[in-house]
Amino acid sequence: MTKKIQEPTITSVTDLPTDEAKWIALQKISYVDQTGTARTWEAASRKTRAKSSGGVDAVTMGNVLLHPSRPPATLLVVQYRPPLDAYTVEWPAGLVDEGETPEQAAVREFREETGYECEVVSISPVQAADPGLSSATLRMTMVEVRLREDEPLPEQRLEDGEHIQRVVVPLDELYDRLVEFSQRERTIVAAKLFHFAAGMHFAKGKAKEYGL
Amino acid sequence: MTKKIQEPTITSVTDLPTDEAKWIALQKISYVDQTGTARTWEAASRKTRAKSSGGVDAVTMGNVLLHPSRPPATLLVVQYRPPLDAYTVEWPAGLVDEGETPEQAAVREFREETGYECEVVSISPVQAADPGLSSATLRMTMVEVRLREDEPLPEQRLEDGEHIQRVVVPLDELYDRLVEFSQRERTIVAAKLFHFAAGMHFAKGKAKEYGL
Repeated sequence: MTKKIQEPTITSVTDLPTDEAKWIALQKISYVDQTGTARTWEAASRKTRAKSSGGVDAVTMGNVLLHPSRPPATLLVVQYRPPLDAYTVEWPAGLVDEGETPEQAAVREFREETGYECEVVSISPVQAADPGLSSATLRMTMVEVRLREDEPLPEQRLEDGEHIQRVVVPLDELYDRLVEFSQRERTIVAAKLFHFAAGMHFAKGKAKEYGL
Repeated sequence: MTKKIQEPTITSVTDLPTDEAKWIALQKISYVDQTGTARTWEAASRKTRAKSSGGVDAVTMGNVLLHPSRPPATLLVVQYRPPLDAYTVEWPAGLVDEGETPEQAAVREFREETGYECEVVSISPVQAADPGLSSATLRMTMVEVRLREDEPLPEQRLEDGEHIQRVVVPLDELYDRLVEFSQRERTIVAAKLFHFAAGMHFAKGKAKEYGL
């Protein structure tokens, strides 16, 4: 892992015309609504969706680390995200490359970001990342990693410019740990991960008050 | 509610320069990373963040309908979303207006989209909506609605151009119903809602296999 020598710093932010952008487009959508009225909507979209992906941009990897003598845990990744000028806490995720299925992208991205070989145990239907803002879509995989008793932390295989810190959290503590992360300076938890943890937390607590 | 006379149809999609956009900007961020290397990132951001919001764009309303004789349920909203050219299934949500706190926005938006008065029972830390793509942030509220035995479905107070269908789903069936929705034509579930439901589903099922 590359040594950290400084805090990341934004040096400039400039308007970007869509025809000069490589990754994202900004578009005006004209449409006729349910009542026959002509309307417009502004939207961001990714320019990179792979034909092989079955119509999704990305995969996220909800993951469970299974160890012979430790409680089931999950691996989170912490990285500087320029759009937020902050460190985000997320599950590993990535774009589906051309020629890959979402499952293949999940295994590859998980290997790159965490160093671990994983098994995909389930994959969700297509989900909309942020429906009012963008056309971006994803499928959520759940993956398992079976560890040996004294397995050392593997090497990541990061791309140039990626600096990703791995944090292992017992699944039972996930919600509380995300709340803690949110209190750290310059740190923000990704909504998908937070909502999953909130769902677990709700099922174990509030849902019982409701008699579920 | 306005009568639906046709399926929504996109008539054109054109590149939109940021200086002509009202809601969204497309930006090139130049930054210096942890190793001292100069890099760039492309990002979308909302132009509308309210000063009163405490630094978030939006609120989402996870909600529980409590009825004297029916099981606890949640209200989902289904609406045509031009960025996806599809109907999305989401929890009610909305942008925080200038002068509002996130809690106030939650109550107002919930009233507008569902017709119900709700009580905010919890609010999450700030979350990143889609950290690789945008600066957009949100806080998730959990709200409760206490219904009377024979309460009729209230009138929505929708803004011009909003066409939002309400669907009440028993909380116990939430995950299965979202999977069903995902199989419908031109229908896609929002990632935040799906991840919450997946977290509940995981806590009640897979987590037990893991001994949690």
